[in-house]
Amino acid sequence: MSTLTHFDTHGQAHMVDVADKPATRRVAVATGRIAMQPATLALIRQGNATKGDVLGIARIAAIQAAKKTSELIPLCHPLALTRVAVEFALPGEDESAAWVDCTVTAETIGPTGVEMEALTAVQVGLLTIYDMCKAADRGMVMTDVRLLEKRGGKSGDYLAGGSSG
Amino acid sequence: MSTLTHFDTHGQAHMVDVADKPATRRVAVATGRIAMQPATLALIRQGNATKGDVLGIARIAAIQAAKKTSELIPLCHPLALTRVAVEFALPGEDESAAWVDCTVTAETIGPTGVEMEALTAVQVGLLTIYDMCKAADRGMVMTDVRLLEKRGGKSGDYLAGGSSG
Amino acid sequence: MSTLTHFDTHGQAHMVDVADKPATRRVAVATGRIAMQPATLALIRQGNATKGDVLGIARIAAIQAAKKTSELIPLCHPLALTRVAVEFALPGEDESAAWVDCTVTAETIGPTGVEMEALTAVQVGLLTIYDMCKAADRGMVMTDVRLLEKRGGKSGDYLAGGSSG
Amino acid sequence: MSTLTHFDTHGQAHMVDVADKPATRRVAVATGRIAMQPATLALIRQGNATKGDVLGIARIAAIQAAKKTSELIPLCHPLALTRVAVEFALPGEDESAAWVDCTVTAETIGPTGVEMEALTAVQVGLLTIYDMCKAADRGMVMTDVRLLEKRGGKSGDYLAGGSSG
Amino acid sequence: MSTLTHFDTHGQAHMVDVADKPATRRVAVATGRIAMQPATLALIRQGNATKGDVLGIARIAAIQAAKKTSELIPLCHPLALTRVAVEFALPGEDESAAWVDCTVTAETIGPTGVEMEALTAVQVGLLTIYDMCKAADRGMVMTDVRLLEKRGGKSGDYLAGGSSG
Amino acid sequence: MSTLTHFDTHGQAHMVDVADKPATRRVAVATGRIAMQPATLALIRQGNATKGDVLGIARIAAIQAAKKTSELIPLCHPLALTRVAVEFALPGEDESAAWVDCTVTAETIGPTGVEMEALTAVQVGLLTIYDMCKAADRGMVMTDVRLLEKRGGKSGDYLAGGSSG
Repeated sequence: MSTLTHFDTHGQAHMVDVADKPATRRVAVATGRIAMQPATLALIRQGNATKGDVLGIARIAAIQAAKKTSELIPLCHPLALTRVAVEFALPGEDESAAWVDCTVTAETIGPTGVEMEALTAVQVGLLTIYDMCKAADRGMVMTDVRLLEKRGGKSGDYLAGGSSG
Repeated sequence: MSTLTHFDTHGQAHMVDVADKPATRRVAVATGRIAMQPATLALIRQGNATKGDVLGIARIAAIQAAKKTSELIPLCHPLALTRVAVEFALPGEDESAAWVDCTVTAETIGPTGVEMEALTAVQVGLLTIYDMCKAADRGMVMTDVRLLEKRGGKSGDYLAGGSSG
Repeated sequence: MSTLTHFDTHGQAHMVDVADKPATRRVAVATGRIAMQPATLALIRQGNATKGDVLGIARIAAIQAAKKTSELIPLCHPLALTRVAVEFALPGEDESAAWVDCTVTAETIGPTGVEMEALTAVQVGLLTIYDMCKAADRGMVMTDVRLLEKRGGKSGDYLAGGSSG
Repeated sequence: MSTLTHFDTHGQAHMVDVADKPATRRVAVATGRIAMQPATLALIRQGNATKGDVLGIARIAAIQAAKKTSELIPLCHPLALTRVAVEFALPGEDESAAWVDCTVTAETIGPTGVEMEALTAVQVGLLTIYDMCKAADRGMVMTDVRLLEKRGGKSGDYLAGGSSG
Repeated sequence: MSTLTHFDTHGQAHMVDVADKPATRRVAVATGRIAMQPATLALIRQGNATKGDVLGIARIAAIQAAKKTSELIPLCHPLALTRVAVEFALPGEDESAAWVDCTVTAETIGPTGVEMEALTAVQVGLLTIYDMCKAADRGMVMTDVRLLEKRGGKSGDYLAGGSSG
Repeated sequence: MSTLTHFDTHGQAHMVDVADKPATRRVAVATGRIAMQPATLALIRQGNATKGDVLGIARIAAIQAAKKTSELIPLCHPLALTRVAVEFALPGEDESAAWVDCTVTAETIGPTGVEMEALTAVQVGLLTIYDMCKAADRGMVMTDVRLLEKRGGKSGDYLAGGSSG
């Protein structure tokens, strides 16, 4: 039966022993969305094209947040990321929906996975978009933040499927 | 017309001048949800009641993250929080849906609002729940992260309305 | 004769070269005590049993502090911890003495030892207990913080003995 | 009856609301000792006089740690220190006991006290001495870390007295 | 006669007491230059115009570094910046010299100046340009980093003049 | 033709993939100068000889900054430094010029170079000297910060030569 590995047999939190796990190449991909008013998306598009680069700043914030994951998440192991890449996707200009999707790929060579690094980067990327646009639109909603894919490591690969992720 | 205040008239990002804004009491409330398998929620409930306290650890992570907001969000002003409170809500035991809601109230006395502090705390609280339960359920989804309420400051109070926030 | 390795031959501090030391498994165990009024210990016991979990929060603070060691101690090498575990011990309920002992085990695979990580975690664990109980008892004293054991590395194993540690 | 103010009425940890407390001048003095072999103390004395300045480095580490207190102690409020001073005391050269005492004074103008800042600085000052001398003496013991004095604030002044404080 | 205020009368470093200094509006402007090969500057110009925005990323790094000043400079007081603005200047396209100038304005309302915040932001802005262009040009030189102007505070205003400042 | 490797083919910043690069021993040496009034240098010399050790404090700040490089420079990979050494050089007592040179050697075993760590340490070392002497001399100028040498890694060794550094 499933149990929570971050607790020992007495129910006390610990940073799990990973010394005996082999150092393998680990990849994780996570994604999330921020939904907004069409007028807000128009401001982002405009800035992206000419000046006031919201997404460029959110990308840097996301990359830096990936490096801070083990400071933020109490039981995460510190690890040396070997790659972080951040992609943003926007709806087509003729679509009525208004959102930005943020997808982050994180990689390391080590004994633990990098899901938390990818997810943390997504969250901080979305938060930065919120921060930069909030004067125009306080009602933005961050949603559907989830792991898409995980490769490397003993527990096997994971690929999100179906509608719920 | 609305513009993005984090950019100057040349479209260059800056940390906005707030020296002339009065120091008033500011409150922000943000919320978000992590959806999961019923078996995962059962593990959290069990831990909460007896041992392996997922939510207690997520609460601490959320409070500490609120204090790190200006490190994470590039154009946020540093500020001295005067209060951070974190609440978790779970569905009734007879409901079929499985989720945890995290709601954070942040306060300061200063020239800028604390929305980003409340939202950052919610995100890191949810991420910590994900981290602690991910060995059992990689498909958890963080969703509906948004500002509920904001009080204090020149731009007036904000209260999220309707279903979308 | 013994010398202080953190200084070069001119007496200038440096972060010692460890590139030629082999990466081996390193373990360190450190411990310390906080002495308090019996009424304070009663509050901690009560919280631990039902609500207001002082020791659970101190455990998280200790684990996170272990990860911050190289930021706090100027000449410490940064390293990737592979395990951190924190144990608290209390006197029997019939004893008149009132204290909490905090014992931390830290591990890594690398060229340097993890004594400082274990000791830093103990100190911050005790400081967190102090912080959470200080409204009730400002006279608590943190005492007897020392290395119990060290394994791995060229300088040989160390096991504290006798009364002085 | 005494209770633990870092918990709300449901026993959940929070960062206590201090918005209504007046900003007054706060002072805290804390102290602690590291006991060692006489030969280790001789190394420190020698370095202090000519080169290899253990105490100068420990002083800087203590000051920087005071500024990191709210990152280390989960429920501490962030605050702007207005002063940090660190003193070291050594036994007379003719005494047989071998130790270094570290005493820190911290000050701020604000709604909360600075006991934790002073205590954290003491602990990190002692840890840095341990780190710099550990190649010569692993059995050093940090002891008697406590608050000496606290001034300013509603709860009144505190002055450690008698044998327990 | 001039003395170094960061030391007490015994020559020991301390964080100077500023509790009695009035909180006034403080402004500091600092600047610095990175000199490079013309081909490197061409890459930066190109990126700035179309994609690969070196200066946009350096601006964000500079702003975030300003917020980290008291962590980096041991005896700096922590302070709440109210404004940080970063400007880059490049030679005219017909000039043969190849460089980027970075000028930072930092502001706060408080008892201490913000020169170190402005200077630290300049240095990290220049370092980020170096990092992003180093694959093309390792011989870049950072030069002429200095305070241009300082306003507010008891010691009077400062305006760099002549050849040395 | 040279390009900026920190951008992908779409001109978007990323933390470059280094997983396939071999872990080799990397060394980097960087240097820089702070020019000052002769009276300021006299204060530093005096402090260095007897008390008020400006350079000892700047050395510690430089070493700690090397460890923070990947937090400060957005696209830097985190890495585990195996050595950091900081040297200061002063003009002969009979020279009329007044300056301090700071030279830092950084080393690691890993897939990426340590130039940024060495340069960041130099910059923060110089900034700390500025901070400690600024009450006596606001016109100090930090200059000529550059990479002297780089060894290890696929791109070959680098040795600064000629007039451009």
